[in-house]
Amino acid sequence: MILRNSTLLMAILAIAISSCSSNSNDTEKKSKNQKSYWPNDARLVISFSMQFETGGQPAGAESPFSESPLPAGAPDLPAESWYRYGANEGVYRMLDLWKKHGIHVTSHVVGAAALRYPEVAKAIANGGHEIAAHGFAWGNQWDMSYADELAFVKKGVDTVQAITGQKGIGYNCNWLRRSPNTLKVLQDLGFLYHIDDLSRDEPFVTKVRGKNFVIIPYTLRNNDIVNVEGKQWSPDQFLAQLKAEFDQLYAEGASKRRMMSVSLHDRIGGTPAMVHVVEEFIQYAKKKQGVVFMRKDEIAKLVQNDPNTPVDNSEAKYNN
Amino acid sequence: MILRNSTLLMAILAIAISSCSSNSNDTEKKSKNQKSYWPNDARLVISFSMQFETGGQPAGAESPFSESPLPAGAPDLPAESWYRYGANEGVYRMLDLWKKHGIHVTSHVVGAAALRYPEVAKAIANGGHEIAAHGFAWGNQWDMSYADELAFVKKGVDTVQAITGQKGIGYNCNWLRRSPNTLKVLQDLGFLYHIDDLSRDEPFVTKVRGKNFVIIPYTLRNNDIVNVEGKQWSPDQFLAQLKAEFDQLYAEGASKRRMMSVSLHDRIGGTPAMVHVVEEFIQYAKKKQGVVFMRKDEIAKLVQNDPNTPVDNSEAKYNN
Amino acid sequence: MILRNSTLLMAILAIAISSCSSNSNDTEKKSKNQKSYWPNDARLVISFSMQFETGGQPAGAESPFSESPLPAGAPDLPAESWYRYGANEGVYRMLDLWKKHGIHVTSHVVGAAALRYPEVAKAIANGGHEIAAHGFAWGNQWDMSYADELAFVKKGVDTVQAITGQKGIGYNCNWLRRSPNTLKVLQDLGFLYHIDDLSRDEPFVTKVRGKNFVIIPYTLRNNDIVNVEGKQWSPDQFLAQLKAEFDQLYAEGASKRRMMSVSLHDRIGGTPAMVHVVEEFIQYAKKKQGVVFMRKDEIAKLVQNDPNTPVDNSEAKYNN
Amino acid sequence: MILRNSTLLMAILAIAISSCSSNSNDTEKKSKNQKSYWPNDARLVISFSMQFETGGQPAGAESPFSESPLPAGAPDLPAESWYRYGANEGVYRMLDLWKKHGIHVTSHVVGAAALRYPEVAKAIANGGHEIAAHGFAWGNQWDMSYADELAFVKKGVDTVQAITGQKGIGYNCNWLRRSPNTLKVLQDLGFLYHIDDLSRDEPFVTKVRGKNFVIIPYTLRNNDIVNVEGKQWSPDQFLAQLKAEFDQLYAEGASKRRMMSVSLHDRIGGTPAMVHVVEEFIQYAKKKQGVVFMRKDEIAKLVQNDPNTPVDNSEAKYNN
Repeated sequence: MILRNSTLLMAILAIAISSCSSNSNDTEKKSKNQKSYWPNDARLVISFSMQFETGGQPAGAESPFSESPLPAGAPDLPAESWYRYGANEGVYRMLDLWKKHGIHVTSHVVGAAALRYPEVAKAIANGGHEIAAHGFAWGNQWDMSYADELAFVKKGVDTVQAITGQKGIGYNCNWLRRSPNTLKVLQDLGFLYHIDDLSRDEPFVTKVRGKNFVIIPYTLRNNDIVNVEGKQWSPDQFLAQLKAEFDQLYAEGASKRRMMSVSLHDRIGGTPAMVHVVEEFIQYAKKKQGVVFMRKDEIAKLVQNDPNTPVDNSEAKYNN
Repeated sequence: MILRNSTLLMAILAIAISSCSSNSNDTEKKSKNQKSYWPNDARLVISFSMQFETGGQPAGAESPFSESPLPAGAPDLPAESWYRYGANEGVYRMLDLWKKHGIHVTSHVVGAAALRYPEVAKAIANGGHEIAAHGFAWGNQWDMSYADELAFVKKGVDTVQAITGQKGIGYNCNWLRRSPNTLKVLQDLGFLYHIDDLSRDEPFVTKVRGKNFVIIPYTLRNNDIVNVEGKQWSPDQFLAQLKAEFDQLYAEGASKRRMMSVSLHDRIGGTPAMVHVVEEFIQYAKKKQGVVFMRKDEIAKLVQNDPNTPVDNSEAKYNN
Repeated sequence: MILRNSTLLMAILAIAISSCSSNSNDTEKKSKNQKSYWPNDARLVISFSMQFETGGQPAGAESPFSESPLPAGAPDLPAESWYRYGANEGVYRMLDLWKKHGIHVTSHVVGAAALRYPEVAKAIANGGHEIAAHGFAWGNQWDMSYADELAFVKKGVDTVQAITGQKGIGYNCNWLRRSPNTLKVLQDLGFLYHIDDLSRDEPFVTKVRGKNFVIIPYTLRNNDIVNVEGKQWSPDQFLAQLKAEFDQLYAEGASKRRMMSVSLHDRIGGTPAMVHVVEEFIQYAKKKQGVVFMRKDEIAKLVQNDPNTPVDNSEAKYNN
Repeated sequence: MILRNSTLLMAILAIAISSCSSNSNDTEKKSKNQKSYWPNDARLVISFSMQFETGGQPAGAESPFSESPLPAGAPDLPAESWYRYGANEGVYRMLDLWKKHGIHVTSHVVGAAALRYPEVAKAIANGGHEIAAHGFAWGNQWDMSYADELAFVKKGVDTVQAITGQKGIGYNCNWLRRSPNTLKVLQDLGFLYHIDDLSRDEPFVTKVRGKNFVIIPYTLRNNDIVNVEGKQWSPDQFLAQLKAEFDQLYAEGASKRRMMSVSLHDRIGGTPAMVHVVEEFIQYAKKKQGVVFMRKDEIAKLVQNDPNTPVDNSEAKYNN
């Protein structure tokens, strides 16, 4: 179901935002006349993504061991144990963090991961987090036929719904790599939004067969998989990135609609040092007035039919 | 038009420098007898480059996705969205920064980027920034014939002039890779200077068919594309580099002509965290007396016929 | 010999822990009613691994030179000298550090290294450290037959025992890469535990032919070989990682059993700058109450038959 | 000429050390009874290497451009300009730094670089620095025949001597890669020491045909070419490495002979930000009592026949 009455939604969500908005001890005040770009005088919306993928990876999937792959058939036991960390420790540690700070996030759940660890998928859903779709398993989606892609996405979302009771309305492709048909496939299946786009710092809409489809832009900058697991940054550098990004977007939030996306993967962002610096970031951000943490489905519903939302049809040739 | 009366130019530009020089609250004073190497007692000239390239890149161009390229014909949609960020957010964010600090920069504009996003190219020109040439599109220039290279450069500069009203007199090759003929081609087309040289920390001249051609040296050290998009440095490390570089060059500026070049690309340097640390750097530099921010065309005109400018004919065999 | 009376062991080791526990000047106190997950109210157990491998490496082994390998037969003299650093300086420097702070560690000793430098192996054993097994030499273990693997492991442990008088009961594979038979091989040879698993932040057991086999999980995060010798991190970044990891695990230690593993290799972690930051970390950790440094054999004996130890049979298909 | 009277040398060099030892404002005092491992109560010797190589590199040599090499015959103009920086700016900037702090360093000079830029080579020699040998040009030395290697080394040292008046008695191979014959070749040519060994933190001797040959160990840790030009570290990280390394070696200097080697290449360590942090390091080190900066030839003469110098014949099979 895709809601279209944005006025009603604005009212409903304004209450939600109001209740989860941080109690700032900051002295900055919004003047009465200042235009607001989000409900309830929110100035910056931060949305966390928490990928749950453990158990959905194929043999030889990206890991600290994958650069020297074993021959087919030989199990890479330490690599498999590295993935299991996500289900054993990573997701639960992040769930504790979100609970402690009253934050609800969007969790991109691979179907096969939920099948392998149903208790983890249920724990995420029970924490009040959005269960979004992330394919049935890891694998290329960009080269599938229309029918195959539709079946693949549907299998993933149905699998996760059967386990968690939540039907995903947001989508994240493996390594962001959509096919030219992906948005039409998602529309066919009742999805509201996808995140596999890096082109803006605010949500926008694009026309798919003439109807609004929402994009909640993703980031590789505030993303553990490239910068941390890619072995480039230590956790303190990730924190430095988050703080600098926040400072700039918060400043810009005074004059335009701004959103900050942060992405954490079960086995990477869920390690102790990473959760520690993410908590430092949350504490840093909460000191500013008007900082709101939202799930991506909430954001998508807010902006879908808002006339202030940018319309971008850069990919129009694929979406007619 | 290439001005040659350096005395007149010195006078004109001295006024410009005087007005844009930072109002320092620093206690360092230049003694009356100290020799100056720039007009108006300026001690260090900082010049920003802002590359506008989005839309000019070929399929498979360098991006966070290009290490695992898709087969020919399959559009790499997230990579394309990553590039669009430069036109949607990056250039505008940097323009806001320059405006806030009263700084004029040199923008290297790819012809095809200006065609794709004419409003962005116009916004740059309208901000008082130099529109410099950067080829018609991304692609190898080092292996072109003389005639092809001349046509390629001319098409780029003409395209951008038609959109912005400015004719570029400075040149930047794709990945700095000139052909042996490039300087002669640029001279034929009325260019004053190029930047594809890393050999000095001050502008210099070289003889091309007996006439002075200016080189404003570039840097890969203070450059987002290698150190930041190359996934080596977090933004705080980029800031540390800029500050250490500045401190040394500023100190040296007391006894010789020194220039600091900083380079930012639309989709990289234009991200929130990067603009935030670049602003920190600007604030840091402005605290020192005699720090001046200049466009590269201004610098080139200042030094072209100044007898204090070094003459370097290391590449003489190509330029006769 | 594998001890099985965990009650007795708990009592014995409680005394050991009591004596090596840091005298904290921290004001945090454990409330009387708080459940403890380690003996003697210890809150977090830290275990260092010190790999002694110098002299056991094959020609062309990973080094700063190995990316441009020499042809077979040409000795890579600087690479060999780089390895010798581990035996000349690295191990001794770390031994001084452990002695200064009253810490006993687990040293994973390659058989051929002990043969080449028996005085180093003896110095480790004489310092009160655990001598654990690490194969007879560097080389793939994952592709050996059952008989070959058993002979390889036995030759390593026998060699080191002959030199140091200690028989290893803990195992670490080359690059963590076990074969499907490794745990059964280790059980045949009387081993108590292995470390080639990255899936948890606490020790656990798995059933091997129906009996408990202990896993003391390893880490690539707090490990010099990936992050430091992989040329990604400077020593201060390694320290930042250790501190952030510690802070989080220490906090979690109030409500569950937590363990922190840190790994240092003779020629990498034994360099001056690395030992300096590791000492900074030890001083940082010791300020907290209830931080205990233990050898892995001590930990394994504590948890082997403790009903609170998690049982994880993820690899059951290989271990029956 | 190789001096052998170490007692006389000790006396002579003690005076030199005395005069260049830093005037410490530190309160640490050496007790009267404390054993000293260097003359004049020096506690730690720091030795800088300054490689002068610009102009000696072959086409396609390591540079920011060399990962995507141009076809043979096509000049890589920006790469060549990147190298020229070393001769135009880098060496002179470092010479200014050494002069400011009264430090004499060892400069490893490639023969072809001195031919191309004789004024640079002379400036180094005139600054009181040691002119050490570094081959005639860049190229593999490890695969040369005895006769070819002897001719190659001799041509380099003769070339540089003709220009600077100094005959090198210390050797540094291209990328440290010696042949099995190198030490015998160096002995034939009257060399006193080489640096292509990473195995210790103090100088040592090895027997070459029964006579003492000195090794002043080199480092890749405190070396700009791997960590900085390898694009891993920003200058502040290089500084963190130097400080941590210094702190540890200085502490150890109380109970054994310790030496710290730092290496800077013309076009890398000679950039503004790097010189700035190296100066910060020098200021940091000078605050400690007993820190002495020495050329490597001075060190080699001190230790060559000192009975306290370790003897290491690990490579005996090549040196008989």
